[in-house]
Amino acid sequence: MTQLESRTSVLHGIRDLRWETREVPQPGPLEVRVRVGRIGVCGSDVHYYTHGRIGGFVVESPLVLGHEVSGVVEALGEGVTRLQVGDRVALEPGVPCRRCQYCKGGHYNLCPHMTFMATPPVNGALSEYVVWPEDFTFRVPDHLSDDAAALLEPLAVGVWSVRRGGVRPGDAVAVIGAGPIGCTTLQAARAAGATTLIAVDLEDFRLDLARSLGATHTINAREQDAVAVIRELTAQRSGLPLSHGGVDVAFETAGSVPTCRMSLEAPRPGGVTVLVGLPPAPEVSLDIVSAASRETDIRGIFRYANCYPAAIELVASGAVNLDALVTHRYRFDQTPEAFEFADREKRSSMKVMIDVAGG
Amino acid sequence: MTQLESRTSVLHGIRDLRWETREVPQPGPLEVRVRVGRIGVCGSDVHYYTHGRIGGFVVESPLVLGHEVSGVVEALGEGVTRLQVGDRVALEPGVPCRRCQYCKGGHYNLCPHMTFMATPPVNGALSEYVVWPEDFTFRVPDHLSDDAAALLEPLAVGVWSVRRGGVRPGDAVAVIGAGPIGCTTLQAARAAGATTLIAVDLEDFRLDLARSLGATHTINAREQDAVAVIRELTAQRSGLPLSHGGVDVAFETAGSVPTCRMSLEAPRPGGVTVLVGLPPAPEVSLDIVSAASRETDIRGIFRYANCYPAAIELVASGAVNLDALVTHRYRFDQTPEAFEFADREKRSSMKVMIDVAGG
Amino acid sequence: MTQLESRTSVLHGIRDLRWETREVPQPGPLEVRVRVGRIGVCGSDVHYYTHGRIGGFVVESPLVLGHEVSGVVEALGEGVTRLQVGDRVALEPGVPCRRCQYCKGGHYNLCPHMTFMATPPVNGALSEYVVWPEDFTFRVPDHLSDDAAALLEPLAVGVWSVRRGGVRPGDAVAVIGAGPIGCTTLQAARAAGATTLIAVDLEDFRLDLARSLGATHTINAREQDAVAVIRELTAQRSGLPLSHGGVDVAFETAGSVPTCRMSLEAPRPGGVTVLVGLPPAPEVSLDIVSAASRETDIRGIFRYANCYPAAIELVASGAVNLDALVTHRYRFDQTPEAFEFADREKRSSMKVMIDVAGG
Amino acid sequence: MTQLESRTSVLHGIRDLRWETREVPQPGPLEVRVRVGRIGVCGSDVHYYTHGRIGGFVVESPLVLGHEVSGVVEALGEGVTRLQVGDRVALEPGVPCRRCQYCKGGHYNLCPHMTFMATPPVNGALSEYVVWPEDFTFRVPDHLSDDAAALLEPLAVGVWSVRRGGVRPGDAVAVIGAGPIGCTTLQAARAAGATTLIAVDLEDFRLDLARSLGATHTINAREQDAVAVIRELTAQRSGLPLSHGGVDVAFETAGSVPTCRMSLEAPRPGGVTVLVGLPPAPEVSLDIVSAASRETDIRGIFRYANCYPAAIELVASGAVNLDALVTHRYRFDQTPEAFEFADREKRSSMKVMIDVAGG
Repeated sequence: MTQLESRTSVLHGIRDLRWETREVPQPGPLEVRVRVGRIGVCGSDVHYYTHGRIGGFVVESPLVLGHEVSGVVEALGEGVTRLQVGDRVALEPGVPCRRCQYCKGGHYNLCPHMTFMATPPVNGALSEYVVWPEDFTFRVPDHLSDDAAALLEPLAVGVWSVRRGGVRPGDAVAVIGAGPIGCTTLQAARAAGATTLIAVDLEDFRLDLARSLGATHTINAREQDAVAVIRELTAQRSGLPLSHGGVDVAFETAGSVPTCRMSLEAPRPGGVTVLVGLPPAPEVSLDIVSAASRETDIRGIFRYANCYPAAIELVASGAVNLDALVTHRYRFDQTPEAFEFADREKRSSMKVMIDVAGG
Repeated sequence: MTQLESRTSVLHGIRDLRWETREVPQPGPLEVRVRVGRIGVCGSDVHYYTHGRIGGFVVESPLVLGHEVSGVVEALGEGVTRLQVGDRVALEPGVPCRRCQYCKGGHYNLCPHMTFMATPPVNGALSEYVVWPEDFTFRVPDHLSDDAAALLEPLAVGVWSVRRGGVRPGDAVAVIGAGPIGCTTLQAARAAGATTLIAVDLEDFRLDLARSLGATHTINAREQDAVAVIRELTAQRSGLPLSHGGVDVAFETAGSVPTCRMSLEAPRPGGVTVLVGLPPAPEVSLDIVSAASRETDIRGIFRYANCYPAAIELVASGAVNLDALVTHRYRFDQTPEAFEFADREKRSSMKVMIDVAGG
Repeated sequence: MTQLESRTSVLHGIRDLRWETREVPQPGPLEVRVRVGRIGVCGSDVHYYTHGRIGGFVVESPLVLGHEVSGVVEALGEGVTRLQVGDRVALEPGVPCRRCQYCKGGHYNLCPHMTFMATPPVNGALSEYVVWPEDFTFRVPDHLSDDAAALLEPLAVGVWSVRRGGVRPGDAVAVIGAGPIGCTTLQAARAAGATTLIAVDLEDFRLDLARSLGATHTINAREQDAVAVIRELTAQRSGLPLSHGGVDVAFETAGSVPTCRMSLEAPRPGGVTVLVGLPPAPEVSLDIVSAASRETDIRGIFRYANCYPAAIELVASGAVNLDALVTHRYRFDQTPEAFEFADREKRSSMKVMIDVAGG
Repeated sequence: MTQLESRTSVLHGIRDLRWETREVPQPGPLEVRVRVGRIGVCGSDVHYYTHGRIGGFVVESPLVLGHEVSGVVEALGEGVTRLQVGDRVALEPGVPCRRCQYCKGGHYNLCPHMTFMATPPVNGALSEYVVWPEDFTFRVPDHLSDDAAALLEPLAVGVWSVRRGGVRPGDAVAVIGAGPIGCTTLQAARAAGATTLIAVDLEDFRLDLARSLGATHTINAREQDAVAVIRELTAQRSGLPLSHGGVDVAFETAGSVPTCRMSLEAPRPGGVTVLVGLPPAPEVSLDIVSAASRETDIRGIFRYANCYPAAIELVASGAVNLDALVTHRYRFDQTPEAFEFADREKRSSMKVMIDVAGG
């Protein structure tokens, strides 16, 4: 018999996480109830924890954080056919309206009516139980770990970034910023056939991880002029003048002003910049003239659409390793410590994982 | 019998155009000699005339200007098969190396070895005779005027911009800047099926012309907040919230900082900004964060590739009107006056045309 | 007050249409009730009427026909926001599941759970009242006629065909078959910028109509070898050898074996064949080897997705004329006569329209 | 000093290869002379050897075969800058006109003026020395074997097929026919991120090789209904009904009528069939109606364009293994035996390699 209460970690204000017991939710039609297994702590979760807002999204009433979620199906709502009780699953955390032109056109990530976990006022999954629509709940193969299942979410970002960038077999790419998103993007680019993979970061431990995950070159931007190195290395490869050096696709994942500028200079003429991270600035001064006259396409990303199935395939086939990203683990009852740690050790940690089911 | 001398207008320094008689050039293999008919004066010609440089391109030795060129084939080099003496033609002014990865890949506009008329140190066509490769010399239908044939060049820019923007039937577009390039872009967008065409400028006479060429809405940006008007107008059309208003594709053709900023705000989420003009600034401060998180693609253009055949078709079919762009005419022997006028009356003129063959 | 009964024309068997009065349906959440205005008779309606089946779709219980539908909104279900009572609307006749990978990916026309009007066992709209989801009910501008609003459905097929074909400004296209679908496809191709538009048919009256709607060339395939004419005409245009003649995109809309074969030979190397009509044969003997080694892409279409908004724009802007397709009209109480006529006069009529609201 | 004669194997008629000594060719401007290293024997070479023709290409005068070529640069023509004497290289065997719309548009494989090695009347490379344009001569990394360098040619076919098919990370693909082209296509698809790779053949030894090169599933079509197995396997994966089973992309590489038919049935709705091989039949009877109404795109390929750089990257990075394809080797002086063997043992061999430089 299922228990009647769902222990939940709730953000009441800046650095104010409280425990609550909430009613176990009942799945409606085409929904399932999931016993939450693991939750990865994302930079955006930490930002709500430390600042109470991200841009226009403000925590105005108590909010449950957590949107990188794996678990086990525990109950089925009416009409559910693709899932069974006991299935190990990952949750895609955003559910769109299904009815606007964006939803009907395959770009549901841009739906104006999206409800996305842990984005005010929508609750996330730092709770023992959540109810979720069947079609945003994905069964994962037996050999995927619970951690990996939770980390399909940041991998979906990487898969989307690579789709938006149009990476093709044999391409050279640069991934600027080798944190969790940088490392999933790097691996997704490698899975799409990129053969020259240049990781750029300020921390050697991240670059070492990137190299172990497939980076063919690493650049510590404290020590080297990243753009100069990228252009030289790639111009040699193409046999074109240095003016035409540059990668086919550059991914900015660090979310800072200097890396944003760097990402516009890294591609070859006709190449692509994908802005995955976003600098914490209202405006950025950019050499847009050079980028435009080199026909460098600049493409942002907003979450992802239709990426979970591919992400699962990539991990299941071994093309992508998500377990390697987890550097620290906490029990559910240590959730506040996990957030404090993730905030404090941003530079020395990769992914902090909370084991909800285990404790 | 052909004459032996080719009267030529040569730029020796800032505002210093001199007449020279040069030897009539002989066509080599796969080349033709063209008796020049009309030359349109482009903003870049005027800029070399008034400043002696554009960015890194500096007039260091005498330079012939003019790259919007029509004429008549007068002599054929060895191996020419597609053209005959007497053919009325337009010249595509850039000839690439044909051998690098950009040329082989269909993006010859990005060829590092491009020779482009009137871009130092390559001479343009303000001369009685020029020799040009057969495959960049295009026969035009009888019913195209000599002016229209010369203005295929700015239309090629418009066609390329519209291809880069991916305009589709039924789209809403905004063209920011209604000068010659704005007006060819507007017409190319209309030819591609755009049904809502919003022209933005500071001068009413340009907006009137844009309206006569197909603009469905015009905005004088001195009088109205162009972005606000664009968003409102398009949100109504889509039935989505104002946050999701915006055109499918925005074209920046004015080349100023404010219009560049405007062009990033004009598209709907998932829309496209095409930067056709370029602000005269090393850097521009932009709200790249909003653009990226709306997944607005930002695409520059550099000249064009493979656009002349389509441009000819569009004019020949009546879908595009180029003759309407010509507001002022000069004889060849008035070339210096034509440049002075084009510089002085930038705001009150559209296209200044020089009749090389006629005088 | 609304009446309580909805007079309905119901197909009970081959050539057996009976009148029934059914209860007026009540709109559920996010649905609207529409007072049906006009219904266009489609070839598939006639085929169910005369054969009781189309391929695997068999009329096993009484079926309401009609899926080209315009009308007026009469009642709103809960949560409807985009429509109001009194709005003149067109109905997109297929509603997908909104939850499978096809729906989420923007290809809802391939949804395995699609309910499509007048496709057994789903009823069509030959009834005074129908209830339909708000998001597949489109408001049309005041200046669109009721006929045109109903005929947005076959235009949606044309718009989808043109998208699938990738028509670009300046292209040459051939439309093989100049019936209602051929004529909407032709017009959609013209709206997308095609400048050489070749219509092929066996009936001069259709070719005349096609010419009046924008065809630049017409070929009566009884009199001329259509493929030979197409190749010669286009090879001249491109200046390439006859082997490389052919249109950029060929549309097969006649649904016969010879036209299917013709449509594979009509494109230039690297061109596209779009199979809009389908031959009534389990298998067709084709020169697939030539098509493949010319890299002619062969693309079928199945209904359409996300085309109604563009179709409305094209008619509203005047780029497409749908009223010209209506050659015969019947009152609602003449529905059986309308079907008999449409069957008998297939070759001499274009679109037969039933005025449901008027009688 | 270079020798003055180039020993050459020349086809004079069916099964009539003769030795000739020809003058060592001198490189013209932008050309290089290459000392031929290895030549792979292709099915088309064998077909000319046994039939004297392939379709419309007829051996009317003595012809040198061989177009899968590696070697060493031995002399540079005027203007060569990217290559040096001593460079180990692979030759891309087709050189286009560089001037027609196909060349300028990036589709030079469709150039009507293409000269392609070992396609009458153009000689191939079964000779000690050949002269070739610099820009179709590609330096290969030190760690690529001479065999692998020669086999970049069939890999280029695989890379092009995968580009034409639009394979994306996480896709399911079927490769029908597991010969040399099947195996390069399979590996190219895997490099592009396909995670379910189904190889179909009639010979177990080929299927075993395919499995060792990355196939996740193999089907011997003598023993199993390949299409049924493919649909079941993939429907499970997607959770859709069996009607919607099928791979994302199917590649036909066997060139027979039954496999051609199979390749149209293997994709899911909205999937792609790539026809790489071509059945030896003027016409093929196909269920084009089903393919079209499932919106299965059918795309042929004709050689490749712009694929050598990517092919080199894929082999150099280890993503593709070409050495594994070589099952038999012959010295240059055994060339006739090599052809006899390749013809006789078509079913039991993969790639026969001729060591030109070594003997």
